[in-house]
Amino acid sequence: MNYEELGKAIYEVSLLRGTFQLRSGIISSEYFDKYQFESRPWLLKEIAHHLIALLPKEFDILAGLETGGIPIATAISLELSKPVVFVRKKAKEYGTKKLAEGVEISGKKLIVIEDVVTSGGQVAMSVEDLRKLGAKCETAFCVIDREQGGKENLKKSGIELISLYTFSQLKILVSK
Amino acid sequence: MNYEELGKAIYEVSLLRGTFQLRSGIISSEYFDKYQFESRPWLLKEIAHHLIALLPKEFDILAGLETGGIPIATAISLELSKPVVFVRKKAKEYGTKKLAEGVEISGKKLIVIEDVVTSGGQVAMSVEDLRKLGAKCETAFCVIDREQGGKENLKKSGIELISLYTFSQLKILVSK
Repeated sequence: MNYEELGKAIYEVSLLRGTFQLRSGIISSEYFDKYQFESRPWLLKEIAHHLIALLPKEFDILAGLETGGIPIATAISLELSKPVVFVRKKAKEYGTKKLAEGVEISGKKLIVIEDVVTSGGQVAMSVEDLRKLGAKCETAFCVIDREQGGKENLKKSGIELISLYTFSQLKILVSK
Repeated sequence: MNYEELGKAIYEVSLLRGTFQLRSGIISSEYFDKYQFESRPWLLKEIAHHLIALLPKEFDILAGLETGGIPIATAISLELSKPVVFVRKKAKEYGTKKLAEGVEISGKKLIVIEDVVTSGGQVAMSVEDLRKLGAKCETAFCVIDREQGGKENLKKSGIELISLYTFSQLKILVSK
C-alpha cells in the first residue's frame, strides 16, 4: 500500500459517525477513533513499514506509550527485532514499580512511539519520566499529528516530533 | 526455537533477583517480570508462533487484555491477519466509551489473550464485560498459568483456559 492509499484507508476506517461526547464535554457527530486502524493488522503492518522508513538508523529501544502506542511499537519491534518498552501513564505501585515495563533503559537511546499526538502533553510527560530513568530521548514518532500545538510544545522540551500524517493531510487525501 | 528452549528463555529473562514489594505487601527476593519476555521481539515472535498452534481454526477476533495481553495479541494478529481488540480494565469515560477498543465485537467469536494468569479474576471480569457487549467468548489463552486456581475459577464462568506453560513446567525446564 502506498503512502496515499494508506492515509486514505486510515481515515476511512477511523472516522466514526454518530453522537459522541468528547473529552471536553462537547457533543460531536463525528469521532476519530484511532483504535480502528490499530485493530486491523493489514493497516498496522503498513503503518509500521512506513514509520520504519522514517526512523533513525541508530537507536537502542522503542518506547510505546500506553495504550495506543503499544501495538504500533510492538509491530515495529517485531519487524526490526529491536526491544520495546511499554510506557505507563502512571507507574504501578507494586512489583518492580516500573514506569517503562521491559528491558533496562538507563543509558539507552529511545525512540518514542505514539499513535496520535494532539497538544503533546502526554508525550512530553512520558519523555520527562523516561529521561529521569536515564534514557536518552530526542525523537518521538506518531501516526497522526492532530496539529494542536504538539510539535511546537514538544520542541520546547527538546523533542522532535515526526508524524506519518498530519490530520489535514489525511483530509486532503480522502477528498481526492 | 522449540518449546523447551522457549520456556527456558522466558524463565531466564523474566526472573529478576533483588528486593521487591509484591502486590500483597510481602517483600520478596525474586520477582517474575512478565514484561521482560514481551519486551524482546525474538521471544515474543516465538511465543506468538507457539500460541497460534494451539488456537482453534475458526474465530473472528483476538482480544488482548490491557496491558500485557496487548503485545501478544498484536503479534498473533499480525501473523494471522486477524483483527484484534484492546480490552481496557476500565472503560474510558469519554469518546466512544469503549471497553474493547477497535473493531465491532457484537456477535463475533473472540479469543482472549493474556500474558500471565494467576487466580483468573481479571480474565473472568473481562470476559463478562465482553459478553455483555454481545461477543462470544469461550476460550482464553495465556503464556503462563501461575496455577493459583485460575483454570478452575474460569471453568466456573464457562471459560476454558489454555496456557502455553504452567509456572511449574517453566521451573522444570530451567532445572534440566
